[in-house]
Amino acid sequence: MGQTHVPVVSVEQEQALGPMVIVCEHASNHIPPEWGGLGLTADERRSHIAWDPGALGLARGLARRLSAPLVHANVSRLVYDLNRPPHAPGAMAAKSEVYRIPGNEELSPEVRLSRTEAVYLPFHDALRALIARRCATGPLPVIVTVHSFTPMWFGTPRRVEFGVIHDADDRLARAVVAEAEARTGLSVGLNEPYSAADGVAHTLRLQATPCGLLNVMLEIRNDLITTPQAEEAMADLLAPVLKAALARVENGMGEN
Amino acid sequence: MGQTHVPVVSVEQEQALGPMVIVCEHASNHIPPEWGGLGLTADERRSHIAWDPGALGLARGLARRLSAPLVHANVSRLVYDLNRPPHAPGAMAAKSEVYRIPGNEELSPEVRLSRTEAVYLPFHDALRALIARRCATGPLPVIVTVHSFTPMWFGTPRRVEFGVIHDADDRLARAVVAEAEARTGLSVGLNEPYSAADGVAHTLRLQATPCGLLNVMLEIRNDLITTPQAEEAMADLLAPVLKAALARVENGMGEN
Repeated sequence: MGQTHVPVVSVEQEQALGPMVIVCEHASNHIPPEWGGLGLTADERRSHIAWDPGALGLARGLARRLSAPLVHANVSRLVYDLNRPPHAPGAMAAKSEVYRIPGNEELSPEVRLSRTEAVYLPFHDALRALIARRCATGPLPVIVTVHSFTPMWFGTPRRVEFGVIHDADDRLARAVVAEAEARTGLSVGLNEPYSAADGVAHTLRLQATPCGLLNVMLEIRNDLITTPQAEEAMADLLAPVLKAALARVENGMGEN
Repeated sequence: MGQTHVPVVSVEQEQALGPMVIVCEHASNHIPPEWGGLGLTADERRSHIAWDPGALGLARGLARRLSAPLVHANVSRLVYDLNRPPHAPGAMAAKSEVYRIPGNEELSPEVRLSRTEAVYLPFHDALRALIARRCATGPLPVIVTVHSFTPMWFGTPRRVEFGVIHDADDRLARAVVAEAEARTGLSVGLNEPYSAADGVAHTLRLQATPCGLLNVMLEIRNDLITTPQAEEAMADLLAPVLKAALARVENGMGEN
């Protein structure tokens, strides 16, 4: 907060040599002053509707342990949700769970265009450039997006602790589920608490699927990663899961 | 030729208000001097291995008739084939039909990287920006790529005159085939002379499919578009086919 000209996207460990690329679209709840606060209270700006709490810390922990580059956003999903295409109502949501987003109601085409140009294009161009460079020189990168979800949704508690979501290619996601069940005590769900059919896998669809890259979207229940210590502990738990899952797919054990 | 700093990509009629976006990846046989001519003879540089002869003229003719923006390349497909991802051998082909491309043999990762950064990224970033802007403001654009193919392939004549290729969503392609058969005397083939399964639909897969945009790849046999007059005549023939095909899909007549 306070900084006016935060870049929309940051790339950390760009030269790291591991096979994975970690992506965190909902890393930040920062609303740059030019978007006027969107009419939210301070509590709303700190809540899960503005970002995925804990996701950036976990993503950084995974990136360090896996020697992976990390591409993350520095702007709230309520300005532009980078995991949605520009025509999706959820790209600039006027409502999220039980909350109204006054600054997103009845947006003009001009505002939708300016947010698409200011946030969506630079983020996905930077991510694509990093992925394309690795594709050009090899080996092919593996795309892992890191998210968190709220434990209560419309007043109902969610049982699942670790959701694993895939786009068209489900190989890595199924291997992650198998390894997480074998190696952790987490309650794991494939395509929970939602799936690509709900329109939540745009980054995988845009960045991984067109080039045939292995991919998975990780969803951690955010009450499990509320402190830096908890984020690190979760990274300790999940980094070996990801490594083993990738080895499983590369050895053909992930085939149906 | 002769010009050193031709931009990799040109956008014509950027503000045109029609529903389609015309794309011509193989519009040019220009090999910028920094790539050293690739060891080709002048005849080879003029042949179908370096570009899609006639495709740019046809694409311009269609763009004018359909009030569509046109995004086209200004660099030979032998420097970088924009319809291939960076890891595809065909992105910087060392062999094309019966021709060796000496300057593309045993390319180092550094050269593959520099061509990807110099050609692939700026072309597809520009195309994506144009598409994303239209998605943000609506209506959703329809992606039409324009190619030509050689009438003789490894010494065998190709019968088909107009090939229509699709990626995952075949609705527009099937409607184009139906309208072309009804409205023209051309020999039309669905997924001929090759199909997405041959890895030739990268632009559709990268630019249209992730956003659920209607799309089609048009392939005209290049002996039918060897002069500006022939390109214009083909545009006269195909523009009404595209218009009618889109209307057919939008009216639900293209559903299976």
